[in-house]
Amino acid sequence: MTATTLFNGHCTGPGPELAASRGLHYGHGVFRTCLIYNSEVFDIDGQIKKLLADAKALGLPPPDPQLLLQDARQMARDTPMAVLKILLLAAGEGRGYGAPVIGVDRLLCRYPAPDHPDALWEAGIRAARSPMRLSAQPALAGIKHLNRLEQVVASCDWPPGCEEVLLSDDQGRPLCGTRSNLFWVHAGILRTPGLERCGVAGRTRDRILQCAAQSSLPCRVGEGSWEELALASEIFVCNSVVGIWPVRTLEGWSSDAPGPVTRRLQGALSHPLHHAKRVAA
Amino acid sequence: MTATTLFNGHCTGPGPELAASRGLHYGHGVFRTCLIYNSEVFDIDGQIKKLLADAKALGLPPPDPQLLLQDARQMARDTPMAVLKILLLAAGEGRGYGAPVIGVDRLLCRYPAPDHPDALWEAGIRAARSPMRLSAQPALAGIKHLNRLEQVVASCDWPPGCEEVLLSDDQGRPLCGTRSNLFWVHAGILRTPGLERCGVAGRTRDRILQCAAQSSLPCRVGEGSWEELALASEIFVCNSVVGIWPVRTLEGWSSDAPGPVTRRLQGALSHPLHHAKRVAA
Repeated sequence: MTATTLFNGHCTGPGPELAASRGLHYGHGVFRTCLIYNSEVFDIDGQIKKLLADAKALGLPPPDPQLLLQDARQMARDTPMAVLKILLLAAGEGRGYGAPVIGVDRLLCRYPAPDHPDALWEAGIRAARSPMRLSAQPALAGIKHLNRLEQVVASCDWPPGCEEVLLSDDQGRPLCGTRSNLFWVHAGILRTPGLERCGVAGRTRDRILQCAAQSSLPCRVGEGSWEELALASEIFVCNSVVGIWPVRTLEGWSSDAPGPVTRRLQGALSHPLHHAKRVAA
Repeated sequence: MTATTLFNGHCTGPGPELAASRGLHYGHGVFRTCLIYNSEVFDIDGQIKKLLADAKALGLPPPDPQLLLQDARQMARDTPMAVLKILLLAAGEGRGYGAPVIGVDRLLCRYPAPDHPDALWEAGIRAARSPMRLSAQPALAGIKHLNRLEQVVASCDWPPGCEEVLLSDDQGRPLCGTRSNLFWVHAGILRTPGLERCGVAGRTRDRILQCAAQSSLPCRVGEGSWEELALASEIFVCNSVVGIWPVRTLEGWSSDAPGPVTRRLQGALSHPLHHAKRVAA
């Protein structure tokens, strides 16, 4: 499985200069993962906006959003379904953490569509709880940056038969999936953890919170507990590639079908895969 | 300032394949920074040993140490003084944190020698205390990996006139410099923080602890406090490029000259720059 890449608009990919990139040496960069469907990048305007905000937070000079849009469209052309990862890398060949950032490189990688067994948006997933706690770093919390070793480590001991693994924050409270944000419904209130200390603020999480606010769905952002999760009426995870995945089982907890809040939010998101019968390879 | 690179033994550098590397996308890789002096890489055997141990800890397949040694020697040839960074990158083009690691790429980057104003090993440095606390992640603590955004952020607000900034651990205790390990002498005992929760186990730190053990210098590895540091008789930082830098000033604390323990350890390390009168550009 090889990615097709576009580097600063060139489909020949990067040259040897990438070897000295701050993106590679320090993970000094940000990214977004999007779904290409019917030759379009789903929610591309929203994704670019988040990408640029994260880039600013890490001191990267802003690239031209029109160039990013152009890159994304080029990668989506004649592509029925695929995953598109958009990266912005801090350029600057000087050695040392404090060396100046002299520019930003745009890197887009297109991958085959995810090969999930079935319409999981409807059937729901089996989730497990990881023993791992994410570390707390308020200076980086929420940013979708390239320092992702915690997620790599958490994905090493993936229990068989699971589609997602849930992680705790540094205090041992439920926080997110390895590649998704986490929501649950408890006592009629939609809940999701705050991201002031750790975690990534996904674009789909933002959209769900907007939907909740617009439709007067009671919602609270803030710390929860595994005990509360065990009492939830609905649990789901979300990201921009799959949309909303209802959780069917999590340790002792189980649910037969997506609950009413999950259904409502799935409808509001208009995610392409919420209507596809099967996610083709 | 451009780096000279060697990628898997090729001096043409990496090709476009680096764009899909797990090293770039997740920081899934490890590194060591070494000093080239008189066409030799100082302490190269020790550096390679640490590099391989860190690679193993992150699930990278081990590269042939002989190839690494050959790479390093090629970079050092006919080079009076330079800095050499050796990176091992997890190869694997699959998307996703849990995608298989299918190999390891060797990347060496040679940079100009550091341009420090004077023989700081003798004169000592001015250090400052950063407000930043490093996050605690026992699964990654001690490993010199490519997730270095905390160090980048800490280097953004570098107080003028300082040569190093000291960081705290997640509990607010003194831990290390942005690019060095930290030692101090208090009540006749050499002290350095433990690295079970955060921080990087530098090769020079290892060598200093070995020296201390071999010469029966009283030494304790474990948490300290800023209050204890303020009462220290000697403070120094170390890394493989500069050796040992005595701290001359740190907030209210100051010292005129390297103390006896610092001097003794400088002598034991046999670092090339401990004898150079000036670090040339």
